[in-house]
Amino acid sequence: MTEKLLIQDATVVTMNENEDIIEPGNILIENDSIKAISDQPIDVDKNTQIIPGKGKVVIPGLINLHNHAAMCLFRSYADDYPLMEWLEKKIFPAESKLTEEDVFWGTSLALLEMLRGGTTTFVDMYYYMEQTAMACTEAGIRAVLSQVFIGENNPEGNNGLQDAINFVDQWQGQAGGRITTILGPHAPYTCPPEFLKKVLKETEHLNTPIHIHLSESRHEVETSLKMHDKTPVQLMNGIGMFERPVLAAHCVHLSEEDIGILAAKGVGISHNPGSNLKLGNGIAPLKKLLDQNALVGLGTDGAASNNNLDMFEEIRLASLLQKGIHEDPTYITANEALALATSSGAKALQKDNLGVLKEGAKADLAILDFNKPHLQPHNNSVSAIVYSASASDVDTVLVDGKILFDKGSFLTLDEERIYYEVNRCAKKLRR
Amino acid sequence: MTEKLLIQDATVVTMNENEDIIEPGNILIENDSIKAISDQPIDVDKNTQIIPGKGKVVIPGLINLHNHAAMCLFRSYADDYPLMEWLEKKIFPAESKLTEEDVFWGTSLALLEMLRGGTTTFVDMYYYMEQTAMACTEAGIRAVLSQVFIGENNPEGNNGLQDAINFVDQWQGQAGGRITTILGPHAPYTCPPEFLKKVLKETEHLNTPIHIHLSESRHEVETSLKMHDKTPVQLMNGIGMFERPVLAAHCVHLSEEDIGILAAKGVGISHNPGSNLKLGNGIAPLKKLLDQNALVGLGTDGAASNNNLDMFEEIRLASLLQKGIHEDPTYITANEALALATSSGAKALQKDNLGVLKEGAKADLAILDFNKPHLQPHNNSVSAIVYSASASDVDTVLVDGKILFDKGSFLTLDEERIYYEVNRCAKKLRR
Repeated sequence: MTEKLLIQDATVVTMNENEDIIEPGNILIENDSIKAISDQPIDVDKNTQIIPGKGKVVIPGLINLHNHAAMCLFRSYADDYPLMEWLEKKIFPAESKLTEEDVFWGTSLALLEMLRGGTTTFVDMYYYMEQTAMACTEAGIRAVLSQVFIGENNPEGNNGLQDAINFVDQWQGQAGGRITTILGPHAPYTCPPEFLKKVLKETEHLNTPIHIHLSESRHEVETSLKMHDKTPVQLMNGIGMFERPVLAAHCVHLSEEDIGILAAKGVGISHNPGSNLKLGNGIAPLKKLLDQNALVGLGTDGAASNNNLDMFEEIRLASLLQKGIHEDPTYITANEALALATSSGAKALQKDNLGVLKEGAKADLAILDFNKPHLQPHNNSVSAIVYSASASDVDTVLVDGKILFDKGSFLTLDEERIYYEVNRCAKKLRR
Repeated sequence: MTEKLLIQDATVVTMNENEDIIEPGNILIENDSIKAISDQPIDVDKNTQIIPGKGKVVIPGLINLHNHAAMCLFRSYADDYPLMEWLEKKIFPAESKLTEEDVFWGTSLALLEMLRGGTTTFVDMYYYMEQTAMACTEAGIRAVLSQVFIGENNPEGNNGLQDAINFVDQWQGQAGGRITTILGPHAPYTCPPEFLKKVLKETEHLNTPIHIHLSESRHEVETSLKMHDKTPVQLMNGIGMFERPVLAAHCVHLSEEDIGILAAKGVGISHNPGSNLKLGNGIAPLKKLLDQNALVGLGTDGAASNNNLDMFEEIRLASLLQKGIHEDPTYITANEALALATSSGAKALQKDNLGVLKEGAKADLAILDFNKPHLQPHNNSVSAIVYSASASDVDTVLVDGKILFDKGSFLTLDEERIYYEVNRCAKKLRR
């Protein structure tokens, strides 16, 4: 039977280039997709569920392009440390103790947080990825997943690439198509060029894109220049990586040539401003990238280096930081900033049925309650979302046409159980 | 009759240098003050109201050192404009139509937002300040208020200084001492030195501190150097302003000498990182100021240039921006960042009974609900507050020992009425 749902009389921020804002607007959803969207009343039969939208604003579900969801376990565990001390004395020792169930519960916590904040699609890269896939299946969220691996001579001596390939074979297109896979070599500094060439062949064979950390820290770029006489971007370009679909995370320290390469090759970029500040990596040249029409979206990175998964914060930071460092308040307008987390994020992922509210698009959306002091008066909805809103303003979240979060309640996840299990796992890992 | 209230079994983040965190902790409040605070059970009689604190974290009420509360009317009204166009084509024309009732309702909206976000004291500078004072009296918040004025030859030809003096005479110590006053000459570039000398005499006579915008934009500093061969800070120091208690807002563009002067003279500084980014003014040298023990606290600025009054965002930005621009994740630790909005903010205001939870301090506090995905697991309460929390995590707010906000409800303000009136006023001003 066709499941029908009508959102009635809402302000609809479509993020569709031709439509902009429909106010008041109506959205008819049939099964997993948007069937109709209109400023005129839509006739429905009595089997259609109605969501009243008055005083509410509907936006496309947010797309988080870079996460290590299970790292929610390490939230607030080790802040304000120098980068290497943070990694070597705190994060790596804790990660070495990680078990499958830790990843399951850590991911489940991240899913609570992401759904609660209007994120409907996320890209993840971590260990025990089948646990993440299982948690996503249960939660109903959309996810692009990669089992991370490093170069062949990796210290753990495991067969990382093969595990990652097995993950792709097992999970591509699962959960009714909500789970897709991506191959995740960690970074150029942990994966030598010859190894990455082998990885590229595999992605051709598997027909998957690549997710990789790229040019995150100044140190990474300096080391690459010293070892290869090339920046990480030039190095990856040289081995032909950008002939494949790539989603590169961070891209903070870029030369003018790097920016040109990333834009010309259509590399998807996850801009992660909160993490880049918090770990002391700096501020990415977002304005320059957008000026060259690079495919940039937004990510939170893991909660150990952010420390939350609130995409509204990343949207706001993406705009405010460029205005601030360039001393120009016209840089990255509200609309451009919101696009990063919606329509542009979808383009960076090469998923054209996500990130916009239009006929035929997936019914992945978030409904915001504007009856809050910080969202009044009603002067401009997009400005309010970008410069004033936060995750807690999200009232209702749909993925694939299904309501997953509604007015404080999770319909697919057991919130109290997850808090209990996560604290149990975190306590064990802190020891 | 003595009113008694006990917060029981909470995590208490005291921000008191000698105590740090008490977990679990109990706080006994009698009338407007903290009577006792302890990790041991506190015996109370049956007339004592009990607030259960399990799973909750208590912090000192946040102190917002710089606001133009009524500008909430202009939230989302004009974003992404060049600074002079924003002021001259959007803000000034709208402000020229402002009436007393606009200021009352605009301020009331700001009070809803501030209380909802745990702010218990704020400093304001605007027009029709008696309306702001009346709204604060009704709401029960603590406020330090100044009727703003510019130099004698101001374009409106009004007697701004005298109005400001009258405001001080009328409102100093009102609302049971919750309202204090401060004299608010707008800025060095709108108040010539000779005029400011006259203002200084008045502040001695009135025994009030001074609130002034200082070194906010690069243009302001360049113009001052051209006109006076001195930076704004040097100019103010030269006329003896810093011999009086001063709260200077912004202080973004500072020379090494400026930083030395502000620190040596004990000038209170309102660091407003969100506004400074959004208006394209830049990033203040917070780390350098703190290294010289300058008295820095935090402010939001008005909602037309922020665009919210969420102090948790300012706390987070204060830390993240310094880590990011200096590429050092150890800069501005979580504890230092939280101090800016609490204990250090109180010092910048010279109010030693605010900003800490200790015996004898005012019972101004916020209780946060940590039963939220983004505040789990319980690894470190201060880190969670600084790097993960937002205004919406505040559950209960007390000022002067009175509960003003509790679990979504305002006890002194009529939320729906304020939304209605604010939208009515905003509609009129937009025309």
